[in-house]
Amino acid sequence: GFANVDLDRTRRTGYPETIYCSGKTKEQILKIAQSIFSKESRVLCTRIDHDKAGYIQEFFQESTFYDNANCLVIGSKPAIDTKSYIAIVTAGTSDIPVAEEAAITAETFGNDVKRVYDVGVAGIHRLFAKLDIIQGAKVVVVIAGMEGALTSVVGGLVNKPVIAVPTSIGYGSNFNGLSALLTMLNSCSEGITVVNIDNGFGAGYSASVINHL
Amino acid sequence: GFANVDLDRTRRTGYPETIYCSGKTKEQILKIAQSIFSKESRVLCTRIDHDKAGYIQEFFQESTFYDNANCLVIGSKPAIDTKSYIAIVTAGTSDIPVAEEAAITAETFGNDVKRVYDVGVAGIHRLFAKLDIIQGAKVVVVIAGMEGALTSVVGGLVNKPVIAVPTSIGYGSNFNGLSALLTMLNSCSEGITVVNIDNGFGAGYSASVINHL
Amino acid sequence: GFANVDLDRTRRTGYPETIYCSGKTKEQILKIAQSIFSKESRVLCTRIDHDKAGYIQEFFQESTFYDNANCLVIGSKPAIDTKSYIAIVTAGTSDIPVAEEAAITAETFGNDVKRVYDVGVAGIHRLFAKLDIIQGAKVVVVIAGMEGALTSVVGGLVNKPVIAVPTSIGYGSNFNGLSALLTMLNSCSEGITVVNIDNGFGAGYSASVINHL
Amino acid sequence: GFANVDLDRTRRTGYPETIYCSGKTKEQILKIAQSIFSKESRVLCTRIDHDKAGYIQEFFQESTFYDNANCLVIGSKPAIDTKSYIAIVTAGTSDIPVAEEAAITAETFGNDVKRVYDVGVAGIHRLFAKLDIIQGAKVVVVIAGMEGALTSVVGGLVNKPVIAVPTSIGYGSNFNGLSALLTMLNSCSEGITVVNIDNGFGAGYSASVINHL
Amino acid sequence: GFANVDLDRTRRTGYPETIYCSGKTKEQILKIAQSIFSKESRVLCTRIDHDKAGYIQEFFQESTFYDNANCLVIGSKPAIDTKSYIAIVTAGTSDIPVAEEAAITAETFGNDVKRVYDVGVAGIHRLFAKLDIIQGAKVVVVIAGMEGALTSVVGGLVNKPVIAVPTSIGYGSNFNGLSALLTMLNSCSEGITVVNIDNGFGAGYSASVINHL
Amino acid sequence: GFANVDLDRTRRTGYPETIYCSGKTKEQILKIAQSIFSKESRVLCTRIDHDKAGYIQEFFQESTFYDNANCLVIGSKPAIDTKSYIAIVTAGTSDIPVAEEAAITAETFGNDVKRVYDVGVAGIHRLFAKLDIIQGAKVVVVIAGMEGALTSVVGGLVNKPVIAVPTSIGYGSNFNGLSALLTMLNSCSEGITVVNIDNGFGAGYSASVINHL
Amino acid sequence: GFANVDLDRTRRTGYPETIYCSGKTKEQILKIAQSIFSKESRVLCTRIDHDKAGYIQEFFQESTFYDNANCLVIGSKPAIDTKSYIAIVTAGTSDIPVAEEAAITAETFGNDVKRVYDVGVAGIHRLFAKLDIIQGAKVVVVIAGMEGALTSVVGGLVNKPVIAVPTSIGYGSNFNGLSALLTMLNSCSEGITVVNIDNGFGAGYSASVINHL
Amino acid sequence: GFANVDLDRTRRTGYPETIYCSGKTKEQILKIAQSIFSKESRVLCTRIDHDKAGYIQEFFQESTFYDNANCLVIGSKPAIDTKSYIAIVTAGTSDIPVAEEAAITAETFGNDVKRVYDVGVAGIHRLFAKLDIIQGAKVVVVIAGMEGALTSVVGGLVNKPVIAVPTSIGYGSNFNGLSALLTMLNSCSEGITVVNIDNGFGAGYSASVINHL
Ligand SMILES: Nc1ncnc2c1ncn2[C@@H]1O[C@H](COP(=O)(O)O)[C@@H](O)[C@H]1O
Ligand SMILES: Nc1ncnc2c1ncn2[C@@H]1O[C@H](COP(=O)(O)O)[C@@H](O)[C@H]1O
Ligand SMILES: Nc1ncnc2c1ncn2[C@@H]1O[C@H](COP(=O)(O)O)[C@@H](O)[C@H]1O
Ligand SMILES: Nc1ncnc2c1ncn2[C@@H]1O[C@H](COP(=O)(O)O)[C@@H](O)[C@H]1O
Ligand SMILES: [Mg+2]
Ligand SMILES: [Mg+2]
Ligand SMILES: [Mg+2]
Ligand SMILES: [Mg+2]
Ligand SMILES: [Mg+2]
Ligand SMILES: [Mg+2]
Ligand SMILES: [Mg+2]
Ligand SMILES: [Mg+2]
Repeated sequence: GFANVDLDRTRRTGYPETIYCSGKTKEQILKIAQSIFSKESRVLCTRIDHDKAGYIQEFFQESTFYDNANCLVIGSKPAIDTKSYIAIVTAGTSDIPVAEEAAITAETFGNDVKRVYDVGVAGIHRLFAKLDIIQGAKVVVVIAGMEGALTSVVGGLVNKPVIAVPTSIGYGSNFNGLSALLTMLNSCSEGITVVNIDNGFGAGYSASVINHL
Repeated sequence: GFANVDLDRTRRTGYPETIYCSGKTKEQILKIAQSIFSKESRVLCTRIDHDKAGYIQEFFQESTFYDNANCLVIGSKPAIDTKSYIAIVTAGTSDIPVAEEAAITAETFGNDVKRVYDVGVAGIHRLFAKLDIIQGAKVVVVIAGMEGALTSVVGGLVNKPVIAVPTSIGYGSNFNGLSALLTMLNSCSEGITVVNIDNGFGAGYSASVINHL
Repeated sequence: GFANVDLDRTRRTGYPETIYCSGKTKEQILKIAQSIFSKESRVLCTRIDHDKAGYIQEFFQESTFYDNANCLVIGSKPAIDTKSYIAIVTAGTSDIPVAEEAAITAETFGNDVKRVYDVGVAGIHRLFAKLDIIQGAKVVVVIAGMEGALTSVVGGLVNKPVIAVPTSIGYGSNFNGLSALLTMLNSCSEGITVVNIDNGFGAGYSASVINHL
Repeated sequence: GFANVDLDRTRRTGYPETIYCSGKTKEQILKIAQSIFSKESRVLCTRIDHDKAGYIQEFFQESTFYDNANCLVIGSKPAIDTKSYIAIVTAGTSDIPVAEEAAITAETFGNDVKRVYDVGVAGIHRLFAKLDIIQGAKVVVVIAGMEGALTSVVGGLVNKPVIAVPTSIGYGSNFNGLSALLTMLNSCSEGITVVNIDNGFGAGYSASVINHL
Repeated sequence: GFANVDLDRTRRTGYPETIYCSGKTKEQILKIAQSIFSKESRVLCTRIDHDKAGYIQEFFQESTFYDNANCLVIGSKPAIDTKSYIAIVTAGTSDIPVAEEAAITAETFGNDVKRVYDVGVAGIHRLFAKLDIIQGAKVVVVIAGMEGALTSVVGGLVNKPVIAVPTSIGYGSNFNGLSALLTMLNSCSEGITVVNIDNGFGAGYSASVINHL
Repeated sequence: GFANVDLDRTRRTGYPETIYCSGKTKEQILKIAQSIFSKESRVLCTRIDHDKAGYIQEFFQESTFYDNANCLVIGSKPAIDTKSYIAIVTAGTSDIPVAEEAAITAETFGNDVKRVYDVGVAGIHRLFAKLDIIQGAKVVVVIAGMEGALTSVVGGLVNKPVIAVPTSIGYGSNFNGLSALLTMLNSCSEGITVVNIDNGFGAGYSASVINHL
Repeated sequence: GFANVDLDRTRRTGYPETIYCSGKTKEQILKIAQSIFSKESRVLCTRIDHDKAGYIQEFFQESTFYDNANCLVIGSKPAIDTKSYIAIVTAGTSDIPVAEEAAITAETFGNDVKRVYDVGVAGIHRLFAKLDIIQGAKVVVVIAGMEGALTSVVGGLVNKPVIAVPTSIGYGSNFNGLSALLTMLNSCSEGITVVNIDNGFGAGYSASVINHL
Repeated sequence: GFANVDLDRTRRTGYPETIYCSGKTKEQILKIAQSIFSKESRVLCTRIDHDKAGYIQEFFQESTFYDNANCLVIGSKPAIDTKSYIAIVTAGTSDIPVAEEAAITAETFGNDVKRVYDVGVAGIHRLFAKLDIIQGAKVVVVIAGMEGALTSVVGGLVNKPVIAVPTSIGYGSNFNGLSALLTMLNSCSEGITVVNIDNGFGAGYSASVINHL
């Protein structure tokens, strides 16, 4: 067929290939999903909308569509296989879709996730009220748009790895997330690494790898 | 001569023309300074180095060179003519030269200035330890390089105007201050306005205008 | 719920949280509005369109939708609580929606606002004809797109703080407002501070803080 | 030799090839100059420093080095061959070297030039005081750095072609002249065309072509 | 009303205010048009679509809509009042709408225009075949997208002013016209000045000013 | 007519003018196609959608529309006139439309093409499995979006010319293909040259020229 | 003094404040170092040159300067306190200074580091020859300039966290490391997170945090 | 040692590893050169200055330093092993160093090179005068700075592969070669592929690969 699915990936990297659905037709997604599902017990589809997901779900016995994450998981829900957990923190309410992409990714890969949403620095007491959840995690994902300052504040308060996700929330000189991206790359706090703008999947994946160490 | 000094500026804007010395020869600076000093009791020269300042100082009876601000003030030291004060806050120690340009500008224009330096968000308790000084000011200048996150945190904690100054401190994707500039323009906190990268003069000037309201 | 509304903000900054509605569903806006309105006498919603506003208005006894500002104010109209006024100046007619966002914000927070629209430098006599209104204000907001030159001209003629708002009006190398933004950040006039492209809200907010000093 | 001088240019475009000396050795410049001078009565060298100019001048009977323009003219001074004149206007004193490059270029090509320097919009009365000189010209060159707003103001006040030259004077978000360049390209005034940053030569050349129409 | 039309512009600059219709409602355009038409015999509206133009035309006795230029001219067709003519040259067929905006602008202001379209450098013999028309003009407008190389070739072959208009035709690293804009600003040919991307109006206006010298 | 078709191109460059259909009306495309087809046995139309292609096909006896390449070929299918072949390699499945534009272009110009799709570096064994096909080609086209790393890996493994095509597949800091473009321009492997983002046509054309050497 | 050292940092984040020496005078560095050393058994100074380091070393009994890392460690060499190790991989030899900054940082914080240098994709067999060292690490740091493609290849071959460091090695459209930065942010391989250009320190720090989990 | 030289490269790609000397010490270059020379009969060093070259030359019996190319070739001069030749064309004299890097690279790899320098489009007759040399080549390298328009003109006149090299010659909005780079990537002529700014080596290498087909 048109695609050359990487069916060996679990052996090499520990996880099967995830299907990035943006720009693929529903028929293409289906074929790739079937190919992976023939070897794996679970397939994660990201950036998939309600309609494409509905089409795919008809072909599988068990699957779940996560609306606010734009994710479809084919196969049974995974059990949590770690004792430690991942904290996923957002600055605003508008960052939640990206956070949910990260959360569903991590949960699909067997992680326990705790969500701490809408605690941005404009009202920093909201962060301090949830600090124990954040400090108790094995790895922290911080998701923020606009100027993304929350990352630096969290970075200065924890002794665990922090994965930062800039979002494209904002306008004008935000330049579709560039502002938050630069903030996170230039953070004066230590222990912060960064993924692409709006890349909830990448953050959830890396957090899962770290949480399973 | 070559220059067309704006000797009417005090009448219109309340302050005489300040001499921006970068890229001017010491002879040019001297001529402009003499022209302004013939009508004003005090002249501020910014972006002036030790050597040019020394040359100029020979021609005036009273003058002070501020080394870490790269500023020269010709004429007597001004008295403080306001009851309220300006707080000037920096994230790091490397931001101090820009802060001093702001401070000397504000002091030259008759303001009481309180300095709160090196309280960036990597160790946010340092900010909270000085919060009463900041909250007591009539106007706050926040100066930060790298990702500039301090501005948003301060903005969420005060009910006074905040003037943000991005500095060019940093490297790589800092892009000579672009990172901090975008942070400050996109802040999720309210009441923050921004001046050019490294423009301590502009911040000190605007803070002075507000402090004299 | 999904949101973690900052109900303590009035105590800290003097104003309640404003709801930025772009990218939020009408149900989300309603919940946040109800949460804030339970503690405050007035709620400002910005970047809200006619339809969402209509939905929200059904749930409150008193509210006003400002069409050309894309703002909804829940609660009664505020009284003017200041003697001084804010001048809001635009270069063109296309900048008016941003100006109205600034004006409604300022009026909602108790300010007297005087509007001076369409006085850009292509016909600079229009500015001079209104100069007394501008010079009489306690703080001036200048709003301009394209090349934004009006800001520098106004800055050279007043002795009060000037808040500059670049707009995204223009095309080609305007780069969605970047041109006006850079103009304002690099102004050769003094006393000018800048907010994000199209950020009428931020300018109205900061002007209100200054007008209440 | 290494160079392939365009000795036919006067026939096609009305002017001989000008030597852009930046990045050429003094020996290269000399060879090119000799080649052109063998066919033309005058050779213009731009972006040439004091040392290279001195070396070249030894080889020619008559030549003049213009220090603040970084220009060398080989051959006799040209007579003014036009009745109308070119006005060259700058915003600040730091823009003068670019203005002089334009002026020497225009004068070398036989034009009468009137200089109006340091009349930027921070003190706009300085412009109005010289407006009759500007309005009397057949073509106006406006040269400005920082935010370059002067161009738009002049553009709104004259009925003659305006050639705008952005300069690299400024710092921070000036981005080496980008700010002034964008201002000039996006001007809300009409009748303005633009040349490259610091391109005094190009402006002087185009002004000469227009002045000779 | 909302607008502050510059009714004095003809006296100052020789031409009435043109209405830039993008982003204005048809009612706004009508009011501005009526205000200008009360003092001028002709009104030019640019960036206007078929529908808005139809609405406006109902209110005036005589008017013409130019479809491929997106221009509406209210009032009678102007007579040609110059002996010399303007050549308008394009590189491709896709650049024609911008060229027509320039042509209609110039014709509305009384100029004789000769069109030379689709003569880009990929087939440079097409340019040479029309060179006499181009060389016979008093001023040449060159319009090109993609890499815009045509401008430099024309610039090297004429002794008249060349106004270059970059268009947004292209894709990928064309960056919506940036590529052609930079080409034109950096041209190795002399006598070229540049207007904003897609700014046919500006080029036609400036060409008219020059053609009337 | 409006267009000035380059009917001499085959003589000069070996190939007739290809019609770039984006932004042209179907009537314009038809006229240009008829003009070229009157002199050539085959016409290639790129960036054409299903509807426009259908309209054009009515007017010609023989033609083929390639759906996933957005290409229409008017005239009979060409015979393969070369012994050597071109390998066209993609990193992902989303890059296939660009690859097909390259493939159809090359086939239309008489080349034998071998397709190697979806062998990106995330699963590099897929590349090694097809290495003999790639190494056997006379010229290799590598097409990749996101970070485009495949190009460098292929470049280090072949001794034939490699033409790299960045695609706009990706999001966030991909900046519509800029990321892959910069990767390819800065490759540490040798023998790689680059065409514009998404320019499958250009790659297929250049590969054909090389394959016919 | 001028600095407000964060002496509480070890308690909060597990590590003391590191001194970033670029732009600080040797006297400033000394004071900050003494302040930290009074509470900690070891102080790391980065971006310090030979001369400043020599000055500082006079004031401490035990210290080591790492020439090719531009790092100074004050205090005794730390013991390795982890069983697992960190692999630090570079694409070229020019990336080694950044790699050494990462390595010294990690070693100073008690980690075992294995170096795998100069294995870039232009000769990919060099990478495969060292793959077991890389796959055996608990966390992998990949450092590359130019186009940075090595990161994606490594990312596809390991099941451990990968921290990517773009370097500023390259020229032209490398834009001082932007090219490698974008490559790493847009990698098609999973499990990769990114730090700032040339930020060896940040990578070593984060790797240490992960290696100690 | 520090470097991991790719001694297998000739087998894979047909050419040994070339040493890019910028940023390497003379001792590092020597070691790498000795390692390659132990297996190959010739080593090419690029971006090497006079001093480093002198140091290296002491250690080898036969070597040649090319001053205006900044290249050092260790070993005997290669014989020309092809019948066809490569044409290397520049727009200006300032582009010659990049052209010589390309020429020496191609000659070192056994090619016959014909140089056509200083034939830019400002005087396009210079190009036509040399057209037969260019059209007779098997592959053409076109090197240009400023706006780089020469590439498109050449591209429209030959039926052989054209490799375009943008140079960083220019100033202002040239942005260190970005202008010429974008021109070449967006060329309306076909058959053009592009290498990095100032990358004469890459162009010479690719031209050699094609010339040997
Ligand atoms: N028009 C506006 N522009 C910028 N910020 C705004 C605007 N309206 C409200 N805000 C602020 O945006 C923040 C809301 O973020 P969120 O939690 O995502 O709703 C609050 O701090 C508001 O005060
Ligand atoms: N197509 C156009 N491109 C650029 N400027 C234009 C155009 N058409 C009209 N203008 C100018 O735009 C200004 C109108 O600004 P506004 O007050 O927002 O309508 C006037 O000065 C017009 O002369
Ligand atoms: N440090 C500074 N940053 C920005 N502007 C300044 C600074 N110092 C002085 N200025 C202003 O720069 C302008 C001087 O322009 P010029 O005529 O070139 O000297 C005056 O309006 C000054 O008030
Ligand atoms: N997909 C394509 N991408 C880039 N250029 C193309 C493409 N298809 C055709 N062309 C070229 O674009 C030019 C057409 O420009 P125009 O006169 O505007 O149609 C011709 O030189 C074609 O050879
Ligand atoms: Mg919120
Ligand atoms: Mg500090
Ligand atoms: Mg108007
Ligand atoms: Mg001045
Ligand atoms: Mg065409
Ligand atoms: Mg795939
Ligand atoms: Mg190497
Ligand atoms: Mg030349």
